[in-house]
Amino acid sequence: MILKIALAQINVHIGNFDANTKKIIDFIAQSKAAGADLVVFPELSVCGYPPRDFLEFDDFIHLCQTAVNEIAQHCHGIAALVGAPCPNPDPKGKPLYNSAYLLQNQKIHSIVHKTLLPTYDIFDEYRYFEPASQHQTVRLNGVEIAVTICEDIWNFGENALYDTSPMEQLIAQKPELIINLSASPFSYTQAESRSQVLLQNTQAYGIPIVYVNHCGAQTELIFDGNSQALDASGNQLLCLKNFKEDLGFVTLSELKTGKPRQKPTIEPVEPAINYELVHQALLLGIKDYFEKLGFKKAILGLSGGVDSALVSVLAAQALGSQNVHVLLMPSEFSSEGSISDSLQLIKNLGISHDIVPIKTAFETVTNQVLEPFFKDLPFGIAEENIQSRLRGLILMAYTNKFGYILLNTSNKSELAVGYGTLYGDMAGGISVIGDLYKTQVYALCQSINKYEEIIPQNILTKAPSAELRPDQKDSDSLPEYDVLDPILMQYIAHRRSPQELVAQGYDAALVARVLRLVNINEYKRNQFCPILRVSSKAFGAGRRMPIVGKYLG
Amino acid sequence: MILKIALAQINVHIGNFDANTKKIIDFIAQSKAAGADLVVFPELSVCGYPPRDFLEFDDFIHLCQTAVNEIAQHCHGIAALVGAPCPNPDPKGKPLYNSAYLLQNQKIHSIVHKTLLPTYDIFDEYRYFEPASQHQTVRLNGVEIAVTICEDIWNFGENALYDTSPMEQLIAQKPELIINLSASPFSYTQAESRSQVLLQNTQAYGIPIVYVNHCGAQTELIFDGNSQALDASGNQLLCLKNFKEDLGFVTLSELKTGKPRQKPTIEPVEPAINYELVHQALLLGIKDYFEKLGFKKAILGLSGGVDSALVSVLAAQALGSQNVHVLLMPSEFSSEGSISDSLQLIKNLGISHDIVPIKTAFETVTNQVLEPFFKDLPFGIAEENIQSRLRGLILMAYTNKFGYILLNTSNKSELAVGYGTLYGDMAGGISVIGDLYKTQVYALCQSINKYEEIIPQNILTKAPSAELRPDQKDSDSLPEYDVLDPILMQYIAHRRSPQELVAQGYDAALVARVLRLVNINEYKRNQFCPILRVSSKAFGAGRRMPIVGKYLG
Repeated sequence: MILKIALAQINVHIGNFDANTKKIIDFIAQSKAAGADLVVFPELSVCGYPPRDFLEFDDFIHLCQTAVNEIAQHCHGIAALVGAPCPNPDPKGKPLYNSAYLLQNQKIHSIVHKTLLPTYDIFDEYRYFEPASQHQTVRLNGVEIAVTICEDIWNFGENALYDTSPMEQLIAQKPELIINLSASPFSYTQAESRSQVLLQNTQAYGIPIVYVNHCGAQTELIFDGNSQALDASGNQLLCLKNFKEDLGFVTLSELKTGKPRQKPTIEPVEPAINYELVHQALLLGIKDYFEKLGFKKAILGLSGGVDSALVSVLAAQALGSQNVHVLLMPSEFSSEGSISDSLQLIKNLGISHDIVPIKTAFETVTNQVLEPFFKDLPFGIAEENIQSRLRGLILMAYTNKFGYILLNTSNKSELAVGYGTLYGDMAGGISVIGDLYKTQVYALCQSINKYEEIIPQNILTKAPSAELRPDQKDSDSLPEYDVLDPILMQYIAHRRSPQELVAQGYDAALVARVLRLVNINEYKRNQFCPILRVSSKAFGAGRRMPIVGKYLG
Repeated sequence: MILKIALAQINVHIGNFDANTKKIIDFIAQSKAAGADLVVFPELSVCGYPPRDFLEFDDFIHLCQTAVNEIAQHCHGIAALVGAPCPNPDPKGKPLYNSAYLLQNQKIHSIVHKTLLPTYDIFDEYRYFEPASQHQTVRLNGVEIAVTICEDIWNFGENALYDTSPMEQLIAQKPELIINLSASPFSYTQAESRSQVLLQNTQAYGIPIVYVNHCGAQTELIFDGNSQALDASGNQLLCLKNFKEDLGFVTLSELKTGKPRQKPTIEPVEPAINYELVHQALLLGIKDYFEKLGFKKAILGLSGGVDSALVSVLAAQALGSQNVHVLLMPSEFSSEGSISDSLQLIKNLGISHDIVPIKTAFETVTNQVLEPFFKDLPFGIAEENIQSRLRGLILMAYTNKFGYILLNTSNKSELAVGYGTLYGDMAGGISVIGDLYKTQVYALCQSINKYEEIIPQNILTKAPSAELRPDQKDSDSLPEYDVLDPILMQYIAHRRSPQELVAQGYDAALVARVLRLVNINEYKRNQFCPILRVSSKAFGAGRRMPIVGKYLG
């Protein structure tokens, strides 16, 4: 049996059944034309991932079923595996399964349910789904296949999250192949983890694996594709594109040739971040956010600092220079360089701009509107924030007037410690670099400037400043970023205690101060826009903290 | 055996171990002084509920353990049941249990783990906890007790969410009593559901039940207390206060007298909302938000409309008149009545105010700052929102200058359809009435005005208007609220499809328009502050929707 398998790495849109169904049918046709016997789509491919509480709407589930039936009509001369929710017929337990539908001869041939339901970080699957309690291989064209869904093959390691393993049950039925339908979002450590897990499965069960992932962004989650086929020895025979739709083919015969494993197929663990991948991820994140919302044009404020410079570059690359408009909004505290550096960047990118000074508006608000009440109280945080909020107000007026989406330019370091103004520089529809610490923002800029000075060097070398009072520097209020960022990473990603951080050599008073800042600013992050996620622990839906909590606060 | 049981309905603060431990020890002392043999505290009483991702911090769990051990030292001559997370010794599965610790003779006598882990709406327990797989009654002073935790006793009904029931297992061990440690937040249907479930348990198992709930608000969740003891026939022998800390006592002998059930103990299902309870819930929600964050003073904008009038009343009642400051911020579009009505309300409440006209700031922004770019484009949404955002900016400047928290005044109807301005009237630290539809806002005002006209009648009778352009009325943009609200309720709480709504008699075009508005405004609600929750389906953490989703959008 040859069994030619197509890996259909598609970019779907949550709840857009017409578009998703059309795309799936198109990929089935392409696969059939290429002589494939089976085409595999990603997890919940019919409705998109994650559908969240749409899964609680009977009508939404009905539309999923309708789509599956329509897709089945196109499965003649080829079989397809598509992901969709499946109603649980048992009145006990959660009302749905997260399922893979095998479609063949214009019918539903069989349905396999997911067993291991990730419920951590950004995942909420047990909110909706009942885990499978029975495990049965699927027989297609005389081949026994272990069909699994994403997390089902991830339960390895010393601290396995689940006390059951569907593959342990399925392997007893002697499948010749594992197929996995996935929805596995990008992070800068995820590609390596994924390769390790696929290798572990081939090694544990001694059979090949075909793995199909989504590509495309759904608000903050960026699915990177990277679908793969590994032979029984763990050799990678096929690897689809990163961050792009793709269709690839592999035959069971190829997968079963069983050459000894060749070393280079799996890269060694590499702790350094691949900034080229982060760069591509953010471009896809921006592009899909706009396309899926039906918008074309972005606006942002260009301060002369590194964060807004980077976001301008990413926006111009993702949306086209002609679709990016920036505002320079100098105040009396803006440095000369903030304008000249910004103008150089604008020229480099070929984007449009306006210069909208906020001085008169600031004076009207402080000297006329508020003066009768604030009287001679000294200039302080209130006045700093008024400037930031006037800029937010002006940017939002542009979005309302001309149909832009405002891109937010906050970085992860300032979001962590609350060094930003709610409704001011924290405004925006989507946060582009809110999952990059300040030191990572610089590293990405360097990576972008590798072959050509897109971002003017001066922007990269001057000291960071909010420029909201005379001669202000970030380092007046915060530790230097190369000191701050490692503490933040240890606390946020690794959840280290103050004692552990001090044992690692950090100053106890500094640790206490930083951790306190992180915790007392939860209320600000709670009102922040979605953040394009590139790390394994981003602020947002993947990190849920109390607001009135007192721990370390 | 008499076994005198104390029900300790306490208000704890998430992560505030010092304060929580001190309070628990104090209630143990009071219970002991009253001759109790056992004192029962609520679920996760040691750390507060819900602790959310603090549970992922080893240090936080360590502090829970330390607190339990300290509390145990005070259990001599009395036993205590306290709730705390317990590490799972098995390396497989989730790392924690949600547990009840029975403390006696200054030691941990036994630990019972929760079996049914709510993972829906605002609950995320499977994110953190492994369900118990073994069930064992606890023996105290010769009495077998079925110790359960919250959801463990809720698995009744035709569509039970779980395919297991801990009480089915425990009853075989012939316990004399069920004790339940709970964290069950208020909604206007919850008290009735709770009474039903307690009655169902006594009827199903034929033994008495002692139920102890939290009181107090944790950000958006308002725990209403309402702890109870029912005898084996379902008679309610004890019911603690609503919305207040309380300590009550009952003996096992009293619980076992087994009189036939007296009818009035359980109220019949009452579909009408009890606005007095909603009123008390919101007062507690405001009070605890301020106290637990260490703030005293609130500010809000008073528009002359019903929403801000209601929030002013609630703030004054919750925090004291001397702690509430309101701003009147008229523009050229404000009606004469908006000022005079507001001044009457301010007088009725005895709160302080400033009148801060936004006309000059609005003119500076539109005629000077933006004129060179917007030129002669017509007045539109941009200019409407500028007014709203200037008000937000002024209110936030006051919070920065004087240390207020800004109370948000949006109602559920406008949040649902996106009839509000991000960073403008959607600004604020906490949303007081964001879980009340506009028609419910009026009903609560009527309830507050029952004995005395606190809210001037004129505010309740005039047509709702945002007053952002000449002669504007809400009904220019939206259906009348008595038409809109029922559609919103059907869609949001009951998740009806467009077809079902049309079948109920609603106009198809109107239904399509309203549902589309709800779905395309998810991005606004995503940046909204926490909403005091009084319904069974509030916007916020209990309703998680995609932003780039396309369903009905």
